[in-house]
Amino acid sequence: MNSIGIDIGGTKIAGAVVDELGTILDERRVPTPAADPKAIVDAVVQMVEELALDREIAAVGAAAPGFIDAAQSLVYYAPNLAMRHEPFREQLEQRLGRPILIENDANAAGWAEFRFGAGRLASDMVMLTIGTGVGGAIVHDDTLFRGGFGAAGELGHMRLVPGGLPCGCGARGCIEQYGSGRALLRMAGEVADAGGIGLALAARRDAAGELTGGDVAALLMDEDPGALAALRRLGRHLGEACASLSAILDPQIFVFGGGVAQAGEHLLQPIREAYLSNLPARGYHPEPDFLIAELVNDAGVVGAADLARAQFVRPGDPEAFTPHPGTVSE
Amino acid sequence: MNSIGIDIGGTKIAGAVVDELGTILDERRVPTPAADPKAIVDAVVQMVEELALDREIAAVGAAAPGFIDAAQSLVYYAPNLAMRHEPFREQLEQRLGRPILIENDANAAGWAEFRFGAGRLASDMVMLTIGTGVGGAIVHDDTLFRGGFGAAGELGHMRLVPGGLPCGCGARGCIEQYGSGRALLRMAGEVADAGGIGLALAARRDAAGELTGGDVAALLMDEDPGALAALRRLGRHLGEACASLSAILDPQIFVFGGGVAQAGEHLLQPIREAYLSNLPARGYHPEPDFLIAELVNDAGVVGAADLARAQFVRPGDPEAFTPHPGTVSE
Repeated sequence: MNSIGIDIGGTKIAGAVVDELGTILDERRVPTPAADPKAIVDAVVQMVEELALDREIAAVGAAAPGFIDAAQSLVYYAPNLAMRHEPFREQLEQRLGRPILIENDANAAGWAEFRFGAGRLASDMVMLTIGTGVGGAIVHDDTLFRGGFGAAGELGHMRLVPGGLPCGCGARGCIEQYGSGRALLRMAGEVADAGGIGLALAARRDAAGELTGGDVAALLMDEDPGALAALRRLGRHLGEACASLSAILDPQIFVFGGGVAQAGEHLLQPIREAYLSNLPARGYHPEPDFLIAELVNDAGVVGAADLARAQFVRPGDPEAFTPHPGTVSE
Repeated sequence: MNSIGIDIGGTKIAGAVVDELGTILDERRVPTPAADPKAIVDAVVQMVEELALDREIAAVGAAAPGFIDAAQSLVYYAPNLAMRHEPFREQLEQRLGRPILIENDANAAGWAEFRFGAGRLASDMVMLTIGTGVGGAIVHDDTLFRGGFGAAGELGHMRLVPGGLPCGCGARGCIEQYGSGRALLRMAGEVADAGGIGLALAARRDAAGELTGGDVAALLMDEDPGALAALRRLGRHLGEACASLSAILDPQIFVFGGGVAQAGEHLLQPIREAYLSNLPARGYHPEPDFLIAELVNDAGVVGAADLARAQFVRPGDPEAFTPHPGTVSE
């Protein structure tokens, strides 16, 4: 039975019909009316109605970049979507006449990776999504870990450096400031400033002295020593964070997604090195694998669709369409 | 139906018969033959046989200070007990002819606090045990969180300070070095060195210049400004760690156990203050409660006994005595 996943980003809303194996059968994309929560509901409703036309759909899941409450009913804080305590599930259910699951976007993407990607052989996974910021998701015992209030897995905001760089979240020293795409640009700028191996980076700066993610990615493809040095700094910070995450969560695998993870082994190598030199009880503590995510652009819609199916479709009763909290399909 | 809990510490082995409400009906204590894993098995076997004499016992749980594998069969690292990859469960089962559950001691104590103590109204709890070191336990969705390899919840070894003080685990900057009873003694010594409010601490030093935990505890009881200043430093470090733990685990409550937690509100106040000033998305992120543990000395035996009952006794079948992995009683 197919389900629909919707991923509401800061700039675009993506939606797709997804089958039980995680394959996308049809998809849509529209710009996000980010300043207007009511217009977001309108856009999601229209997208679901288009995707569901002439199709049997078992369930609908919607992912949003923000805190979702433990009952998965409210978006109580989504800074980029002007959402504050928005009863998003109810709004969508009333308009669509279908049960809706809502979920944090990084959790949805992590779930997709766990079910259909790099995490599919594990029961316990930690995923870090290295995009502009750092997103996180935790899977434990084959279940998405949501925490006591629904806001767990905000791994980008664990503190790496006491009194460190100020973060958009209001705290200081968050791993987001040392392990994100934006941090990589800052580090690349510092390598460029230093001359030497930074010359190729310096040459790509624009008139305002800025580098773009594309510049750094292109130099990484060429194995430019300056770009690799910046990436190694980033990876070391991430590896240090993973050592603490192992002491706390003890996952079997760490998975890295997002644009920066396209650097593959160049990213994983400094992560592994810093992980091992910071691991408590090294030699006795089991060592996890470090992997690159396999689902790239569509993880959010695939994960939202799959979580909705798991929530609303009973095993052995694929036609069921009423909520059965706690049951998991397949 | 009663069960037996055993708590193997570095210096003593405690055992008790515990009923379904967590009440201790009978108990025993012997010194730990810490250097000899075989003698530990002998001591546990003898204690269980004594406690089980003329009683119906549903299950036996044994807690040990070390890493237990995910199958809860091996103690693969218990530095203070000379245990390395010890097939502890099998050894006990063969001798006792009963199914045995083994569990990490901090997990067992945390479980007792969750079931019968400060955590009994929550579904998601983080417990920090502030003794000589810092122990940890995580309960999520009414279940003990063991992680992918069985070694989760080693919260004393998350890193607080990059390149910080060396820790017994081989890493640096672990919260154990900034939030434990041993750290409190160090901080109290620093306050004593500084004179002023440290004079009462300085006056209690022995000939070698050392303070004991009892000295600091006595001065805390008297609300000595120097001892309180040391405790505030300790609490701030713990509060900072809790801010990161909220971003990761998002518990409803933090519970503090161990000897230092006897300081009560004097400890909780600096924890809360540092927590709030380090909390990511403060004002939007839900705020947990901070509580002192209620079960003091017996948490380990009570938790081990209750976990064993949950593992081996089926609901509605209190006489059952064969293992039913995954079922939970009551």
